[in-house]
Amino acid sequence: MAEERIVTAALLVIGDEILSGRTKDQNIGALAEHLTSIGIRLKEVRVVPDDEDEIVSAVNALRLRYTYVFTTGGIGPTHDDITADSIGRAFGVAVDIDARAEKMLRDYYAGRGLEVTPARLRMARAPLGAELIDNSVSAAPGFRIGNVIVMAGVPSIMRAMLEAVTPGLKTGDRLLSVTIAVDRPESEIADVFSAHQKRYRDVAMGSYPQLRNGRPVSDLVLRCSDPARLNEAADTLKAALNL
Amino acid sequence: MAEERIVTAALLVIGDEILSGRTKDQNIGALAEHLTSIGIRLKEVRVVPDDEDEIVSAVNALRLRYTYVFTTGGIGPTHDDITADSIGRAFGVAVDIDARAEKMLRDYYAGRGLEVTPARLRMARAPLGAELIDNSVSAAPGFRIGNVIVMAGVPSIMRAMLEAVTPGLKTGDRLLSVTIAVDRPESEIADVFSAHQKRYRDVAMGSYPQLRNGRPVSDLVLRCSDPARLNEAADTLKAALNL
Repeated sequence: MAEERIVTAALLVIGDEILSGRTKDQNIGALAEHLTSIGIRLKEVRVVPDDEDEIVSAVNALRLRYTYVFTTGGIGPTHDDITADSIGRAFGVAVDIDARAEKMLRDYYAGRGLEVTPARLRMARAPLGAELIDNSVSAAPGFRIGNVIVMAGVPSIMRAMLEAVTPGLKTGDRLLSVTIAVDRPESEIADVFSAHQKRYRDVAMGSYPQLRNGRPVSDLVLRCSDPARLNEAADTLKAALNL
Repeated sequence: MAEERIVTAALLVIGDEILSGRTKDQNIGALAEHLTSIGIRLKEVRVVPDDEDEIVSAVNALRLRYTYVFTTGGIGPTHDDITADSIGRAFGVAVDIDARAEKMLRDYYAGRGLEVTPARLRMARAPLGAELIDNSVSAAPGFRIGNVIVMAGVPSIMRAMLEAVTPGLKTGDRLLSVTIAVDRPESEIADVFSAHQKRYRDVAMGSYPQLRNGRPVSDLVLRCSDPARLNEAADTLKAALNL
């Protein structure tokens, strides 16, 4: 097969509420699934508190390692929403009211007969040079600067922003997968499975234990961007397991 | 109030299946809630792939920063279960079959009339000097070495191990919280809320936007380990918001 085109990403979840357990994150799974489906490989996730130093240091560590860094959370109007300022500091650029974002907010609130207060205008702040990301749910935009894509934490708004930003993303070869559900515990198939991994080193193979009706069973997942190679590895594995 | 006793933790989730979106993590929320309830502050979460270098480097970064590091995933019998070896490498100690763990597995399988295969024995491997963590669900133990606590990824087994390890953990002052549900969007309460945060700098205040019946509303969360101070801040905030 031709050389693989690999595009990678990290996700930075920003929010005390996830770390306290008060809010259960839904964005990790949603982003992971979406990126996998479009050919971007999520390689790392971090969750950090609403703390500027922590956000800056995580963004800078991640943006140098991966093609893209997505962030969720901390872009609302209240004092604990410090993502825009933190990203500006990470890139060493000023953060101010963005005229295009201000217009989006003014149009949105005017249409609802509401005043644009200073707190609402806070949601128009972005690092200089950022591109805006449309928010079809509640107007206040996300933004993209360099390879960092800044989205809201509310899951429905995060998903709207992810849809909006997707057409502009570079994508690579999709990692295809086949799942083989085996009605035996991992320990009974481990030797065959391990030998099979050695035979197909270019196909990543993982085993995921499950309890089905209280009994331990296994899902074997094979991943490869070449469909012919993937199918061959899956078929020969099924044969080796007498499935 | 007396000086706060603060005990911190990080969680390292190990697993390709979380990063691909195939499996939705349930352990972050469960661990976060449990640690908050016993007085340990979860300060960071990372999700990394089944890759020894990534695991070693994350474990070593986290164990120096926090009182405890919890890990989930990668301790089963198959070739992709590399957590024990990675932790051994992170600590620079050998990893081998642990005699106590082997006995646990032999007893468990003997009681079920099953053979202890080499694959099953793999689940008895632990870094030298590690303490074992009981697994009341399926026998194969977790382990603790230094401040690193290694648990299974299957949520029910993770929770059993967490219960088993909890009595031996050092805990600090619990961060208490009060949530004030406000039937207004964040942007309408942001100024009052921000002024209140400045008045009570020792009480962490966060605002969490929600959509209730399609309308934006806010949950205001105040956190402090001193109950009297927390209640005062909550009462005065309610008054300031005319609630």
